[in-house]
Amino acid sequence: MNSANATTTELRDLEKATEPQPDSELSRSASAFDIRFDVPQIQRLRFTNDLFGEDFEVLAALIESSGPEAAKVQIWVDDSLQTTQTARLNELSVRLNEEPQIETVGDIQYVSGGEACKRDPLLVDSILSAFNAANLDRRSYVLVIGGGAVLDAVGFAAATAHRGIRLIRIPSTTLAQGDSGIGVKNAINYFEKKNWLGTFATPWAVINDTRILETLPDRDFRCGFSEAVKVSLLKSAEQFDNLVNNARQIHDRDDEITQQALKHSVLLHLQHITRGGDPFEAEMARPLDFGHWSAHKLEPMSAYALRHGEAVSVGVALDCLYSSRTRNFPRDDALRVVRCLAQMGLPTSHPLLTNKAALFDGLEEFRQHLGGELTITMVDQVGTPADVHEIDYGEMGAAIDELIELSQGENAVGREVA
Amino acid sequence: MNSANATTTELRDLEKATEPQPDSELSRSASAFDIRFDVPQIQRLRFTNDLFGEDFEVLAALIESSGPEAAKVQIWVDDSLQTTQTARLNELSVRLNEEPQIETVGDIQYVSGGEACKRDPLLVDSILSAFNAANLDRRSYVLVIGGGAVLDAVGFAAATAHRGIRLIRIPSTTLAQGDSGIGVKNAINYFEKKNWLGTFATPWAVINDTRILETLPDRDFRCGFSEAVKVSLLKSAEQFDNLVNNARQIHDRDDEITQQALKHSVLLHLQHITRGGDPFEAEMARPLDFGHWSAHKLEPMSAYALRHGEAVSVGVALDCLYSSRTRNFPRDDALRVVRCLAQMGLPTSHPLLTNKAALFDGLEEFRQHLGGELTITMVDQVGTPADVHEIDYGEMGAAIDELIELSQGENAVGREVA
Repeated sequence: MNSANATTTELRDLEKATEPQPDSELSRSASAFDIRFDVPQIQRLRFTNDLFGEDFEVLAALIESSGPEAAKVQIWVDDSLQTTQTARLNELSVRLNEEPQIETVGDIQYVSGGEACKRDPLLVDSILSAFNAANLDRRSYVLVIGGGAVLDAVGFAAATAHRGIRLIRIPSTTLAQGDSGIGVKNAINYFEKKNWLGTFATPWAVINDTRILETLPDRDFRCGFSEAVKVSLLKSAEQFDNLVNNARQIHDRDDEITQQALKHSVLLHLQHITRGGDPFEAEMARPLDFGHWSAHKLEPMSAYALRHGEAVSVGVALDCLYSSRTRNFPRDDALRVVRCLAQMGLPTSHPLLTNKAALFDGLEEFRQHLGGELTITMVDQVGTPADVHEIDYGEMGAAIDELIELSQGENAVGREVA
Repeated sequence: MNSANATTTELRDLEKATEPQPDSELSRSASAFDIRFDVPQIQRLRFTNDLFGEDFEVLAALIESSGPEAAKVQIWVDDSLQTTQTARLNELSVRLNEEPQIETVGDIQYVSGGEACKRDPLLVDSILSAFNAANLDRRSYVLVIGGGAVLDAVGFAAATAHRGIRLIRIPSTTLAQGDSGIGVKNAINYFEKKNWLGTFATPWAVINDTRILETLPDRDFRCGFSEAVKVSLLKSAEQFDNLVNNARQIHDRDDEITQQALKHSVLLHLQHITRGGDPFEAEMARPLDFGHWSAHKLEPMSAYALRHGEAVSVGVALDCLYSSRTRNFPRDDALRVVRCLAQMGLPTSHPLLTNKAALFDGLEEFRQHLGGELTITMVDQVGTPADVHEIDYGEMGAAIDELIELSQGENAVGREVA
């Protein structure tokens, strides 16, 4: 430990870091300090081919004992994996426990996956109870394997127990691998409001494993790629071209191409979080939410029949058409986006789009979630996003009509896929 | 918004920031990224003489509307202030609402103060319900006026609603003004364990007002100065000398001297948090917890008859004597600490100290809270702390005996005060 012998001079240095208090009406003793500081964080991201097999060491190497005792590890799993992966999960638990620095505590804990788990107000309490029963502390590890909703609910519990137990996320869907797994957020629904309760918290590590995706149904597999298209539109013309050119191979689940696409997607998200300057979203803009104002509304409107990745596909297509109508975004690029999503097997339209009044409520709900002024990300060119603070309802309605026509007409964008 | 057109080259730059994966046994596709990044924070600290009166503007200036609507403000108050400050609080609420950029929402919400409020599992839920009923969003403000426990409970709710509503803390005790108010933590007790549930979160602002302390009973008023002695012992020989020289005036509540002492205390705490390099306590050591392992144990042992500031006084005195027995800390300085605390009117001993076995359990509980290796801060010189990982129970027992004798004997350190 450093000696830190602060003198009055040093306190004065701290005082100098202040912005001056402008109001001279204040009492003589009033004074002000505005001190900026940084909280250092690390994002540990690993890519593996077969984490439960030959790449097991990647996981073991992430778990440090701190002190003479072994590190406690509790394993939480999305129950959608229970049918296909039970044997491998049990084996993983046994192998972890064989490591000298690791002690797995309790059985593998299964959680109901999907949005339902975020709606269950008792779930977080039961997760906390299991942490407490196993005497987990701030140096222990919670290993969570599952889709985005399970990562979110277990992550919220881990972020608040002891003010933060180390969380290792192993996303089991393309959507979570390409996007939310690397995120620095967690949340559950509360008062029937989506993501009302949560924290910003950087996970200890995220491991994207290829083999865990093998048993994913086609529909779920495709869901991760609308976020990949979205982030490339915001950040990388090169990667956008890759996705457009490889849309059919992604639809056909080509191993190498889907792995590369997911890897680029998560790295672009990671780059935004770690190099974008606003990791915990203190500012108004949330550029990664491109296409999400309508997606967030379409999901509950469809009673969650539409999955998040599908709703994002529709929302991205819509805001690309709107950007081409109201900004400089080239119409050809907008059509390339719609065609690319359709070729991947993702929906680019939905009957609920015709309920424009209900859909437009999504703009106000989006504003309310963050508070303050409405800020929506649109796109000027591929790789160049732009914030807008007003939406032209007439143009948005026309963009909706156009999108519906594109997916129904003679030249339906999705036709060649079906 | 900046254009951010990431090319493969830029992703390679991100890739370069990685620590290499040492194990060549891994599958060809395994790769690793360790990306460091910072989360920027601001601590806004204000000192006022009469916040509810002539310094009102200091509070109003901290509240920004973001967007066309007024900023919503909800006021939460420790009910210990209800008897003495109701009229002034109501006036504050009215004046806030008169500001064009501010809308106060709902009546002033009163919360039972003291440790009891952190033990009530339903309290946080009722706070969250009030936030939701008032439609607070991430740009709204929660203004909390009270002692440390109320700041903690309301702060935890504010930190998790919408992943963080802006929290303005107005500490109403010397203890909270000198120490916890500026802290970047919040917590409630859970599973009957102290501070088991909580987050790290930087408040939007902290306002230390002098006049709010006027109605504080002497016993509570003194409680803030054991933390002032503690932090000066760790960080500032100059400030330590000031406290030793002014102990009697602090006991007698001299305005100027107590204000200066509290201001130095909170600035030293602020300096540690913002310049110490580990604001969210990722490392093992918690130097600000000097003297706290026994204090945290004495509080429940006394069924909370001993207040936190009093328990810290005993704990600091004890660890100073222990440091003088086992390290180079001069015995004269240890005695100066004990005498200074006693002159301030704080206890430096307690009958429960004789229950050494129970007290020593506090060391293990302290270790368990953080996990890993036991790390306790001791002191080598005034201004020079040191981490130790083992406690010599024999020497600690002897230090206890010495402390009891000092406060009972012919030359009892506290005598001249009584």
